[in-house]
Amino acid sequence: MTSVAIDRVFNFSAGPAVLPEPVLRRAQEDIWNLAGTGIGILEHSHRGKAFGAVLEEAEALCRKVGNIPDNYKVFFMQGGATSQCYLVPANLLGQGKTADYFRTGKWAKDSVKEARFYGTAHVCYDGEPDNFRHLPTPDEISHSDNPVYVHFTSNNTIMGTQWAEEPACPDGAFLVSDACSDIFSRPIDFTRYGLVYAGAQKNLGPSGTSLVVVREDLLENPPRELPMMQSYKLCAEKGSMPNTPPTFGIYLMGRVFDWILSEGGLEEMERRNRAKAELVYGALDATSEFFECHAREDSRSLMNVTFKTGDPELDARFVAEADTNGMNGLKGHRSVGGMRASMYNAFPREGADQLAQFIRDFAQKNG
Amino acid sequence: MTSVAIDRVFNFSAGPAVLPEPVLRRAQEDIWNLAGTGIGILEHSHRGKAFGAVLEEAEALCRKVGNIPDNYKVFFMQGGATSQCYLVPANLLGQGKTADYFRTGKWAKDSVKEARFYGTAHVCYDGEPDNFRHLPTPDEISHSDNPVYVHFTSNNTIMGTQWAEEPACPDGAFLVSDACSDIFSRPIDFTRYGLVYAGAQKNLGPSGTSLVVVREDLLENPPRELPMMQSYKLCAEKGSMPNTPPTFGIYLMGRVFDWILSEGGLEEMERRNRAKAELVYGALDATSEFFECHAREDSRSLMNVTFKTGDPELDARFVAEADTNGMNGLKGHRSVGGMRASMYNAFPREGADQLAQFIRDFAQKNG
Repeated sequence: MTSVAIDRVFNFSAGPAVLPEPVLRRAQEDIWNLAGTGIGILEHSHRGKAFGAVLEEAEALCRKVGNIPDNYKVFFMQGGATSQCYLVPANLLGQGKTADYFRTGKWAKDSVKEARFYGTAHVCYDGEPDNFRHLPTPDEISHSDNPVYVHFTSNNTIMGTQWAEEPACPDGAFLVSDACSDIFSRPIDFTRYGLVYAGAQKNLGPSGTSLVVVREDLLENPPRELPMMQSYKLCAEKGSMPNTPPTFGIYLMGRVFDWILSEGGLEEMERRNRAKAELVYGALDATSEFFECHAREDSRSLMNVTFKTGDPELDARFVAEADTNGMNGLKGHRSVGGMRASMYNAFPREGADQLAQFIRDFAQKNG
Repeated sequence: MTSVAIDRVFNFSAGPAVLPEPVLRRAQEDIWNLAGTGIGILEHSHRGKAFGAVLEEAEALCRKVGNIPDNYKVFFMQGGATSQCYLVPANLLGQGKTADYFRTGKWAKDSVKEARFYGTAHVCYDGEPDNFRHLPTPDEISHSDNPVYVHFTSNNTIMGTQWAEEPACPDGAFLVSDACSDIFSRPIDFTRYGLVYAGAQKNLGPSGTSLVVVREDLLENPPRELPMMQSYKLCAEKGSMPNTPPTFGIYLMGRVFDWILSEGGLEEMERRNRAKAELVYGALDATSEFFECHAREDSRSLMNVTFKTGDPELDARFVAEADTNGMNGLKGHRSVGGMRASMYNAFPREGADQLAQFIRDFAQKNG
């Protein structure tokens, strides 16, 4: 530990999480005076020209980043994915109908619970007996007869598991993805989905705003009347503005989309994310007599690496010593314990390098 | 018009609206590195110590600003007041029960509509026949027999009307106030209320976060089971964190509360707001052969001054010329037309002075 003031540390937080530094620098300016208007981004009317341009650009850049087809609506909503847990069935699941859910972690469990307010949630795979260490192989999946949709969590932040690719979807149903923690971390083919949603606070921006991408025909016949702020249809029709939207969140997401494009797009994000994850998993595999990964090898996440020593006191020392060495936020979620290294798009490779070295040194010193 | 770059203009926007400049300056720093942690406020985990301190301070400062009694819960929610339109009856109105609503403008109308998803909304006063130009005198109010609560909008942003004090409440009921556009613009006695809510984007912070203050006994027996993110009880129990909260909105509200206290608290806010409003109403009254105020004199808002010439072309010229002179956002809401000058807590007196002079000059030049 030194007494020199720290400017920026390596932030392994699972979310809210590290943002690209050029985006932060730009936000510092725009908070005072956006585009020479003499008014900061937080203070601009959502009905004015300046914010209109921000919103339009955010949507256009999002479509460009994700190569989103024209028959998909893209809009921004208040709140995070826990709101989407009920908004999905509220907007897409009629009373008496069934949707299939992959129960692969905490957020998937919450989604199952909330769906039951609106229809029937059939669990087509339950990862709990295995403590959510792996994602299913095809023989472990059991669909209901006629599901409206099939819901899965593309990356399980707490467990550190990630689908290598989206699950197959029965005929007549459509796929819904909770992509909170890996949206735009790699290329995604939206034509395989009916709906993709993501809270912003991992790969996209600040907490409090969500991105929703939905095939437009799915909004045509809502199964029930809903309060204004719960309606996908209204939000899509009003271009993300059924009321005053979370303007700063939308602004910041636009800046992040711009940053992704300027860095080379989703292929480049995947290349970097894979390289960072390989550094850390490589160090863990090389010290496997000392560290154990929570996720089964075939289900490992590129976003969140979960591991432990098996000794809670030693885990705590790992977290504390890493923090002293400029690596913050490595404590695992209480339900899994141990450590978790979250390395989203904006997380720098140097941080992964430093963690990998620290893992080796720690194992050697304490092994 | 000059070609010199404008740094900051007078921002009369109805919301999102002008914020205190010291708060913006501080936010610029904290976005990069909060309190020497080496991590910006947007990037801090909501479960970490740094944000924990931010949240705790925001609540404590809010209680201090509002002199909020201990038997009231204070929490922050995702979204704005349009969400509260349905959250209030969802959490407080049992099926088959009735709540009374003062229908005094657009937001009040929306509240009535949303309440009908959960119970019966009785309109105890309807301002529409008068085009919402005034708030009711006691003889214009007709309560239902046994309302659970009485809902009113303390300031009608679009109409430019404001209750001088809260309405009387029938025995056995409690008052609910949508205080979006005048919260903390003057002292408020919370003991007269069951619930007060406000979207942040006028007097408190950025859009996308709401403040809720509620008497704790009202949360004890919720009338129905609700999805997690709709439950006041859960949000109160979890200290604003049933899930990842809108961390930046909460941070910024804390900074604004701190600013209010440092400037002298709510008495001083009211003194300033009254002085600003008097300047502008004074100019309008002095040119009443040219300008007409929308609100009846006894119902005039200190926050939003609504007025017009009666000639839409002349109104448009007023707005455009004011803009050229560094006064932005004066166009009235489309449902009322004409002009609207919104002057919340952070709006500087110099801007009101300049507008008052501009009103006199414009009337003289065009009268």
